[in-house]
Amino acid sequence: MIDKKRGRLTLPSEANFYDETCEMIEKLGADAIRDSDGTYLPDEIKDIEGVDIYTNFFPTRGHNEFAETVPFERSRFFLISDFVTATSDITKIDFLKGYYKKQLIADYDYDPKKWWQVYDRSTGEVVDPSNWEIDKEKDIVSVKTIPYHVYTVNFLAYGIWDPVQMYNHITNDWGDEVAHHIPFDVRYEKSSEFVEKNLEKWLQENPKTNVVRFTTFFYQFSLFFNEDAKEKYVDWFGYSNSVSPEAMIAFEKEYGYRLTSEDFVDQGFYNSNYRIPSKKYLDYIDFQQRFVSNKAKKLVDLVHKYGKKAIMFLGDHWIGTEPYGKYFKNIGLDGVVGSVGDGSTLRIISDIDVPMTEGRFLPYFFPDEFYEGNDPSIEAKDNWVKARRALLRNPLDRIGYGGYLSLAYKFPKFIDYITKVADEFREIYDISSKAKPYKACKVAILNSWGSIRTWGAYVVAHGKWFKLAYSYSGIIEALSGMDMDVKFINFEDVKKGIDKDIDVIINAGDAYTAFSGGENFLDPEVLANIRKFVYEGGGFIGIGDPSAYQHQGRFFQLADVLGVDVEKGFSQGFDRYFTQETKDHFITKDLKEYKYGEEKPNVYAINEKTQILKYENNEVYMAANDYGKGRSFYAMGLSYSLENTRLLKRAIHYVSHKEDILEKYFAKDIRLEVTAYPEISKYCVINNSNEKVKSIVYDGDKNAHEIEIDAGEIIWFEE
Amino acid sequence: MIDKKRGRLTLPSEANFYDETCEMIEKLGADAIRDSDGTYLPDEIKDIEGVDIYTNFFPTRGHNEFAETVPFERSRFFLISDFVTATSDITKIDFLKGYYKKQLIADYDYDPKKWWQVYDRSTGEVVDPSNWEIDKEKDIVSVKTIPYHVYTVNFLAYGIWDPVQMYNHITNDWGDEVAHHIPFDVRYEKSSEFVEKNLEKWLQENPKTNVVRFTTFFYQFSLFFNEDAKEKYVDWFGYSNSVSPEAMIAFEKEYGYRLTSEDFVDQGFYNSNYRIPSKKYLDYIDFQQRFVSNKAKKLVDLVHKYGKKAIMFLGDHWIGTEPYGKYFKNIGLDGVVGSVGDGSTLRIISDIDVPMTEGRFLPYFFPDEFYEGNDPSIEAKDNWVKARRALLRNPLDRIGYGGYLSLAYKFPKFIDYITKVADEFREIYDISSKAKPYKACKVAILNSWGSIRTWGAYVVAHGKWFKLAYSYSGIIEALSGMDMDVKFINFEDVKKGIDKDIDVIINAGDAYTAFSGGENFLDPEVLANIRKFVYEGGGFIGIGDPSAYQHQGRFFQLADVLGVDVEKGFSQGFDRYFTQETKDHFITKDLKEYKYGEEKPNVYAINEKTQILKYENNEVYMAANDYGKGRSFYAMGLSYSLENTRLLKRAIHYVSHKEDILEKYFAKDIRLEVTAYPEISKYCVINNSNEKVKSIVYDGDKNAHEIEIDAGEIIWFEE
Repeated sequence: MIDKKRGRLTLPSEANFYDETCEMIEKLGADAIRDSDGTYLPDEIKDIEGVDIYTNFFPTRGHNEFAETVPFERSRFFLISDFVTATSDITKIDFLKGYYKKQLIADYDYDPKKWWQVYDRSTGEVVDPSNWEIDKEKDIVSVKTIPYHVYTVNFLAYGIWDPVQMYNHITNDWGDEVAHHIPFDVRYEKSSEFVEKNLEKWLQENPKTNVVRFTTFFYQFSLFFNEDAKEKYVDWFGYSNSVSPEAMIAFEKEYGYRLTSEDFVDQGFYNSNYRIPSKKYLDYIDFQQRFVSNKAKKLVDLVHKYGKKAIMFLGDHWIGTEPYGKYFKNIGLDGVVGSVGDGSTLRIISDIDVPMTEGRFLPYFFPDEFYEGNDPSIEAKDNWVKARRALLRNPLDRIGYGGYLSLAYKFPKFIDYITKVADEFREIYDISSKAKPYKACKVAILNSWGSIRTWGAYVVAHGKWFKLAYSYSGIIEALSGMDMDVKFINFEDVKKGIDKDIDVIINAGDAYTAFSGGENFLDPEVLANIRKFVYEGGGFIGIGDPSAYQHQGRFFQLADVLGVDVEKGFSQGFDRYFTQETKDHFITKDLKEYKYGEEKPNVYAINEKTQILKYENNEVYMAANDYGKGRSFYAMGLSYSLENTRLLKRAIHYVSHKEDILEKYFAKDIRLEVTAYPEISKYCVINNSNEKVKSIVYDGDKNAHEIEIDAGEIIWFEE
Repeated sequence: MIDKKRGRLTLPSEANFYDETCEMIEKLGADAIRDSDGTYLPDEIKDIEGVDIYTNFFPTRGHNEFAETVPFERSRFFLISDFVTATSDITKIDFLKGYYKKQLIADYDYDPKKWWQVYDRSTGEVVDPSNWEIDKEKDIVSVKTIPYHVYTVNFLAYGIWDPVQMYNHITNDWGDEVAHHIPFDVRYEKSSEFVEKNLEKWLQENPKTNVVRFTTFFYQFSLFFNEDAKEKYVDWFGYSNSVSPEAMIAFEKEYGYRLTSEDFVDQGFYNSNYRIPSKKYLDYIDFQQRFVSNKAKKLVDLVHKYGKKAIMFLGDHWIGTEPYGKYFKNIGLDGVVGSVGDGSTLRIISDIDVPMTEGRFLPYFFPDEFYEGNDPSIEAKDNWVKARRALLRNPLDRIGYGGYLSLAYKFPKFIDYITKVADEFREIYDISSKAKPYKACKVAILNSWGSIRTWGAYVVAHGKWFKLAYSYSGIIEALSGMDMDVKFINFEDVKKGIDKDIDVIINAGDAYTAFSGGENFLDPEVLANIRKFVYEGGGFIGIGDPSAYQHQGRFFQLADVLGVDVEKGFSQGFDRYFTQETKDHFITKDLKEYKYGEEKPNVYAINEKTQILKYENNEVYMAANDYGKGRSFYAMGLSYSLENTRLLKRAIHYVSHKEDILEKYFAKDIRLEVTAYPEISKYCVINNSNEKVKSIVYDGDKNAHEIEIDAGEIIWFEE
């Protein structure tokens, strides 16, 4: 029997904080202590009994004594200059303009004529290298230009300051005395050797460390700053900082074709998560994932050799380790730890197939949240309630916090709240680790990425709100804690034949993005397989611009399935008579106000059979449609809210013809949710709101009983 | 000296209304009497002295005794069936489903295997004719299909009921005793001969007619009804009802290539005005325009032979006569009459290069407006105030009304109001026909159509509101009465070199439509010429999705000129720091609330130099930008209002560096406008509102004086 008052909790600590650390370990029941970026653990803390010591290890940064000897092996980026309009025959392009020169400098060590590219963006053609020259003193490219064409320079840059340390350094104003970590690239021989030797040395020097927390391995996700030392670009999935000519040479040897700067620069979009990935880019990330997993495995093996555990932080230099990629298992990690902002970021971690998963909860113990007059327990509560519903679906093995414990210590109300969180977590873990939760339907999210972006669809920067993301990420967030079996599939999966056990396919995203799917919907096989799936009884949910591609008279290529299409101007001559709402529909029964997020204008019903569930502003906002034996649901958007979570749950039941089991393990009030573990005859009701709620709750046999539950609380029931 | 109390006015009349007609002629000062659809003029009216008699003549309808003898020569359409999803190997398509069978029947006289096309819309390929068969009894096409592909049938149909008479017949419930006019096609020999002979006979039989009002010539704009006898599709510019195999054979002989049904059906979009016209379609309309103008000339010549005048109604069967087309002049018409709904529909008529233009004002004397309890003078006033500002820019030669005079006669307040309108019109005409109005700047509207759609941009059905049109048609409406010289240009005009005398180019429309320009912005020459024009000092105004085409890192291809681009998801990783509004800008000085019409989401400033004039909802709604010596202005939309008219005027002055002459002939209050005729030292102030207004007014030397002007009034000043 697990001690419900102890374990499964990691706390940060720091120097000169021994007594309070012991007090906190005792109060919270922590069983592990960690350092953070900017803190270290003195020996006295490492010697505390009954706790494991987690220590950060940075393989490719924080070793300037080495890095300074191998400037050629510093990390690299392929970057694009500003778009510059030529107004004469010669145009000078200050390609570094707009970049932070303490982070990035031009790499002239590799011949620019061979590795860089100047583009005429008015024609899309590469300018012949004989038509441009570089002034290396001034970092200026002079191009022979056609007046009033637009030009860009794709250039190779050294990243000379590790982006994460740079971020922390600037944010915390560490000043000149803290050296800038120089990042180096293990694709190069000396760095590759150094990383292993250095780890082994470090392992020998840190006998008190039980768990090595890699933060992370070799390649930082895309993050670069502008001339004002502010973030210019961030992409949590970006491979921009993993590039090097060395890698490209190896790639060419293996794949038989050569990558160019443009394959990384991608018109300036840097192969964003929202771009439909090209074959070349997919080849490259596969290639890098294999490289990273092999290299990382060596480090993990070393850790094991010294009898310690190896875990990695899912963030920072995690590029190439994708936990849902094909090569992650090879690394042999003992665990993954990552930041939990909500339900979906929790599931990104908890669904990873690894012996141990740990979530670092918010807030981070930093002065931006822990300042006089603020109540950090508010953020902690919000964070916990959002994460808990996902935790019930698939638990983490551990939770933890980061930052300065000495700071959090000054907020007793906060400490009390996280003590309660830790206890509640241990209780949930105790039950949910013993049995699988009840799942009503199997749902597949279809996009261009599929399983490799499991729970990570629509993400730009981890945990940040984006205008073009939030109308869709509500789907992921809603599902993260819903009683559904969720998988992520791509168009190749659809072409192979849709799995028989899938009840509902969801396709959601803006037109022409990776999440809607763009040109994938020009493939008749993709269309036919989805149509057949629905026609024979499957469910289809489209949000935003599902199956969108203007082609052959349709914008929604699956307009026949959805019962709606979009007016793009070309067919305004047609009278649209189908505007009547269907009242009292199963899907919208609990909906008071539909908050769709961003509007997708000009959706209309293509025939009189379409059931319009919401019509406003001369547009269809929501619709359902029968298609053979199957059903579909269309909605303009689905930002995250308790109401939209219910809407989506009802839509899933409706399109999969499972209306009859909606009220199995179900709470009438939308603020409550039920998770059940039928194998052990337990279920719980959680209150996701800040209000006390009285509601009818149904058990597994749909028997109703009334309960009353306090704000944010959880109640367990036996069946 | 013109008699200001008489002339330039056409009234309708009818049988059994002699005395009242005389009274009305006297009161209103009418000098012409006309018949309407459904009325005729008895001899006693035709004999009234001092008035011309206008008589409608329908060349290709209303002659069933002939039409019934030549069923093969009835008018034709190429139409598309519903989109049908195959669910097995054989799919039966009821291609006439959704059409009004009293209007349309299949044409089996021409071999369907040769003239029809079945499309697999999932692949975009034509199905080989050996793979489909027709059941002509049941009007069903059976197609060998690939399951879950989508199919359509393009079929040739006879139009067996003239669409305009059908509309009037159904609307007015004329019932069975009024025969359905059978339309016939002058492309065929017997019809061609009949039309001329019949006209000559008619001219001989109608000696009292002074003016033959062709309503109109041969081909009706696209208009077809659905199975409920309601409008299914309308396109005021549509050529769908001008087609025939005979024409296609002649076309092939001349152009050396064959048109197919798909060239007309166009994926079901029927070459809508909003579609960027294909080369084939442009060839076809040129071909038909030549045919129509030649044929129409013969009829006009006949009219002249009998000493009468020939005018045409710009509407109904006007296809092929485009007054701004290359062949219109050939017809030799004495005048054009058209319906005036507002300023832009007035300018469509008044700008035609023809000896006489006449506008038919609203309301039409029909029971839908003239019923007990209603005050038709309200619509008349709205119509007049909207039209008057355009009239002052370029006057019509005449105005008139249509419908049942006996109905209007019962509304004395209305009669009084239009008496005042007639007098005011004659006064305006008297002045404005003697001199050119003052013009501050020369503005060119750039779209795929150019001059052929002069004042007709964004029109779907004449005078009707469309959701995807109104945000742009406000530009046209505002300009119709503004002190600007306006021309309409297309991308060929831009490629030839932009005229030196143009101050400002306006490009406005939804992405990928004919009005924005779509793929035309992939042409580096188009882009370079516009950039050069602006860079050297020209002005550019973009509304909605100007220069939009997703290509080479940009959505707005002229983002450099506009200072803004659109986030389509791919570049969300970039931080957008430029969100500060520039306050007190010249352009927005008189703007209180910006009504843009439809939202164009996610516009952002591409650099810090862009002057953001309105920022809301994390988006740029309006911006100005310096570009070399030139300037640009971006706005999300411009629906018609007095406030937006001022906004546009200010923007035009700003981007053309003519801020200094804004207050030349200018009223401070946005509800007023000034039109000046410097050659004759006169200017007038009009009040476009329903309120009495006190305002400062500036003369041609920018001298200010205060005036007070009643609602809807006009005041003339001498300089």
